[in-house]
Amino acid sequence: MSTLRRYVPILEWGRTYDRDMLTNDLVAAVIVTIMLIPQSLAYALLAGLPPEAGLYASILPIILYAIFGTSRALAVGPVAVVSLMTAAALGQVAEAGSVGYAAAALVLAGLSGAMLLLLGVFKLGFLANFLSHPVIAGFITASGVIIAASQLKHILGIQASGHSLPHLLGDMWRHLPQTNPFTLAIGVAATAFLFWVRKGLKPLLRKSGLSPRMADIGAKAGPVAAVVVTTAVVWLFGLEGRGVAIVGTVPQSLPPFTIPTFDLDLVRLLLVPALLISIIGFVESISVAQTLAAKKRQRIDPDQELIGLGAANIGAAFSGGFPVTGGFSRSVVNYDAGSETPAAGAYTAVGLGIAALALTPLIHFLPKATLAATIIVAVLSLVDFSILKKTWAYSRADFAAVAATILLTLLVGVEAGVSAGVVLSIGLHLFKTSRPHIAEVGQVPGTEHFRNINRHDVLTDPAVLTVRIDESLYFANARFLEDYILDRVIGDEDLRHVILMCSAVNEIDMSALESLEAINHRLHDMGMKLHLSEVKGPVMDRLQRSHFIDDLTGEVFLSQYAAAMKLAEQQPAQAPVDPAA
Amino acid sequence: MSTLRRYVPILEWGRTYDRDMLTNDLVAAVIVTIMLIPQSLAYALLAGLPPEAGLYASILPIILYAIFGTSRALAVGPVAVVSLMTAAALGQVAEAGSVGYAAAALVLAGLSGAMLLLLGVFKLGFLANFLSHPVIAGFITASGVIIAASQLKHILGIQASGHSLPHLLGDMWRHLPQTNPFTLAIGVAATAFLFWVRKGLKPLLRKSGLSPRMADIGAKAGPVAAVVVTTAVVWLFGLEGRGVAIVGTVPQSLPPFTIPTFDLDLVRLLLVPALLISIIGFVESISVAQTLAAKKRQRIDPDQELIGLGAANIGAAFSGGFPVTGGFSRSVVNYDAGSETPAAGAYTAVGLGIAALALTPLIHFLPKATLAATIIVAVLSLVDFSILKKTWAYSRADFAAVAATILLTLLVGVEAGVSAGVVLSIGLHLFKTSRPHIAEVGQVPGTEHFRNINRHDVLTDPAVLTVRIDESLYFANARFLEDYILDRVIGDEDLRHVILMCSAVNEIDMSALESLEAINHRLHDMGMKLHLSEVKGPVMDRLQRSHFIDDLTGEVFLSQYAAAMKLAEQQPAQAPVDPAA
Repeated sequence: MSTLRRYVPILEWGRTYDRDMLTNDLVAAVIVTIMLIPQSLAYALLAGLPPEAGLYASILPIILYAIFGTSRALAVGPVAVVSLMTAAALGQVAEAGSVGYAAAALVLAGLSGAMLLLLGVFKLGFLANFLSHPVIAGFITASGVIIAASQLKHILGIQASGHSLPHLLGDMWRHLPQTNPFTLAIGVAATAFLFWVRKGLKPLLRKSGLSPRMADIGAKAGPVAAVVVTTAVVWLFGLEGRGVAIVGTVPQSLPPFTIPTFDLDLVRLLLVPALLISIIGFVESISVAQTLAAKKRQRIDPDQELIGLGAANIGAAFSGGFPVTGGFSRSVVNYDAGSETPAAGAYTAVGLGIAALALTPLIHFLPKATLAATIIVAVLSLVDFSILKKTWAYSRADFAAVAATILLTLLVGVEAGVSAGVVLSIGLHLFKTSRPHIAEVGQVPGTEHFRNINRHDVLTDPAVLTVRIDESLYFANARFLEDYILDRVIGDEDLRHVILMCSAVNEIDMSALESLEAINHRLHDMGMKLHLSEVKGPVMDRLQRSHFIDDLTGEVFLSQYAAAMKLAEQQPAQAPVDPAA
Repeated sequence: MSTLRRYVPILEWGRTYDRDMLTNDLVAAVIVTIMLIPQSLAYALLAGLPPEAGLYASILPIILYAIFGTSRALAVGPVAVVSLMTAAALGQVAEAGSVGYAAAALVLAGLSGAMLLLLGVFKLGFLANFLSHPVIAGFITASGVIIAASQLKHILGIQASGHSLPHLLGDMWRHLPQTNPFTLAIGVAATAFLFWVRKGLKPLLRKSGLSPRMADIGAKAGPVAAVVVTTAVVWLFGLEGRGVAIVGTVPQSLPPFTIPTFDLDLVRLLLVPALLISIIGFVESISVAQTLAAKKRQRIDPDQELIGLGAANIGAAFSGGFPVTGGFSRSVVNYDAGSETPAAGAYTAVGLGIAALALTPLIHFLPKATLAATIIVAVLSLVDFSILKKTWAYSRADFAAVAATILLTLLVGVEAGVSAGVVLSIGLHLFKTSRPHIAEVGQVPGTEHFRNINRHDVLTDPAVLTVRIDESLYFANARFLEDYILDRVIGDEDLRHVILMCSAVNEIDMSALESLEAINHRLHDMGMKLHLSEVKGPVMDRLQRSHFIDDLTGEVFLSQYAAAMKLAEQQPAQAPVDPAA
């Protein structure tokens, strides 16, 4: 594969594109377009931007991802969690609805795109692995709660702001008396209808004789029905005059060409939010892409995905959009609708372009409450607190990281939540490895296998102590090992040999090497020899580059069994001799 | 041991204090006092404070450490690296020599003391382990260079400031024409004399018939001789009128009672420096204490040491001092002079108190150049760039951390240097564990031992793939393992069984568990079974709390040998059956 084809996957799949693929892609594109129109408008609302920004953010980014991305089913555009993070980031630098706010959204998308591109080009996609699965699950659940809460104001027809749950709910409580009954009626009806569509419409369509696939597609079109009906109701009864907030006039145009202004102060303020948005967006996107690829035994290249998403976000920055990523629900719809190549995304873009040009006058009377209902129903499916129960049962460290992520996301905000999750995961991991499990082992009778004397019935020798350190030896636990060994041997008169069984030692860094030298030296002073067993190849290669092996009072054995045999033969042990002296 | 005695070790050793101990402690105290007088003045100069602050910082802190500390030889007071860090921290908040500067020094000592106390009470001493040995070595070397460079201005008799090497040298270069010849002569002579004392005096004293111990003590008194002679020269020839900077009038008093003013803005600015000073001071102190304790087979309790150092620093804050810690050279002198208990420290404090009351008029004409010479000769013994060579040979990751620490300390400053060292060490460790070494293993003929097929001549079975993962499985490498296994098995038609040999797996967190579930599921889809072997007790305990073991298509074997025997018997492998279905 040439370098060019590597970085531009379209050159690869484009060569074998045929008529069947075209048909399948076109059908998928029509279905996704219909679903994306209300979703795009709704997520723009969530991000605090005018509704057309949602359409714009779905057009050029989709095309750029189709050129550079590797997933054949991923649909790129505004998604719930990233839109919430966008609102949180922009709220710190500008007033929602102002010109500066929309301009800052372009900068945020541009920064995020540049970061994703750089991470991809330098193959740093593995950095996303430092977000543990439970932290992501907790973050998405908490974000879902905040998103749903933030949309309640549109259902009630009141003002409220805030990026954390206490602020949001407090502000909503204060404005509750201003609730608009017409808005409330539309909002509740739309929400109830959409919930019913999710649960009840598909079985109904099946019963009425539709094929499973068509029933599925029919159910996915539910939000469009809600949009059409509520818009018609507002228009017919003139409810906008009764205080029902509507989308209003949306410019009839293709995405504008915009140039983000990289003001240094603004960039500095948006740097950390852009990084978090990039990482969360990438993690969400890649897990969707991998899930869908696995179903068709296709491979996703994470570093190329970074480049695809980077290009998409830069596209958003230059076409009046805001940060985008691969969305779960739209990708699943795209996949289920039978899309075969990223070209389906390009056709969707054409569909949305037509919508932006021709259909925008039709949504003038669309009530914001309907869009809010769409969001609430969509995000509540993301909310799943069972991760708390699962991690509590399995691992307290994972539980602590998830609980901190959820609590901080809800109480302080998205950035604090996800940062705390990452820092706590890493900190707890380091803490655990700094106090490793150490087992004294003996021979399982009748085998050459050695296990923990406290868990198994094993054979031991009073003159030989074998300790298995269950961790790589590095700076954080070097002193711990030193203390452990010396505490253990002091006062044990019979002891002549200490064997460190290194089957679980995957690295010995410089600090640990110095600790091993100290242990060797002190054991020698006490008349004991230090031996190593089952040292792995890469670790042994490194030890041989130091003086440690020459200075070691004992031997290095290939297997623990060989060590035990040899030392048992030698009994009674000789007086210590210093090979280095 | 009662709780009180645990936290106040003096109650323990105080009960057995006898006349012999008293004599030994008194002799040691006299020797250390003589050595500490010029050293204390010099380090106050280095910290940018008036000379008496150095004496004050050596009195109350020593007594408090004697009460709360566990080391029987550690001598607490101002030390070179911490004084440099103090100057760097205070330089950011006040002008050297101003009233605010000395006041900020009290706040810094108070903050540092409080942090140390808290770390001790909450048993967080292990945090210091995250400073790797090479990073500490590099940091001390680079600090030594900066300290020596910063003292050159006193030798030249010029003005210069800056906390990084380029600033310092640049400023010195600009002021070079103002060099004072008298100062230069005194400075160079004192430096040369002190170097000669280090290298040549001790052999000379031995030759002239002194015992090794007395020769050693005589050599340690060298700086006092330099102080006396140069002070006399300045006084006799009236050199202070020729531009030679002298110590000047020093108040004749015991340490004053001072109350640090914890202004919130100041505290915020000094928080990070105080933390770094606390950690560096603790690490330096504990390594000296442990080295000396090991020689007498005594134990040091790191958490109690934190309490002792915390009390000492709080003492410094309330008695006109600045941050202190256990110093290497003074502790070694104390130890060599035969001190037996922390009481020796208390007697030293009395000696310094007498000096502060009675001897200060005598040092009026002491030239600052002599103090600078003392510092330069003392710190150059700390400078040792060989750590770069050692780490380069042993481990590139350690080398990178040391090189970054040294470069940033020299070019930017002490805080940047030590922070970079810690962050880089942790980052590189995480990076390494995120891409673990994975070995395919086979049976070493004639044994039950399994090793890497690429390094050893081993027996394998085409239907069984055994991979040994040389790392704990956690969020950072969960996806890596998933990718590795699936890439490896695709296209291998003979394969029926995959065994994960878990001898080096010390933990499986929630993220890794989900990856294992995915691997199990996908192998099942491909008609293969997943087995585990040599899973450790603690890891198995945890796995049993999840559904993974129930869903596993294969078995969990106690040893790899048992796994290989069982699967070899089963040949030809049956069609896959799903035990969970």
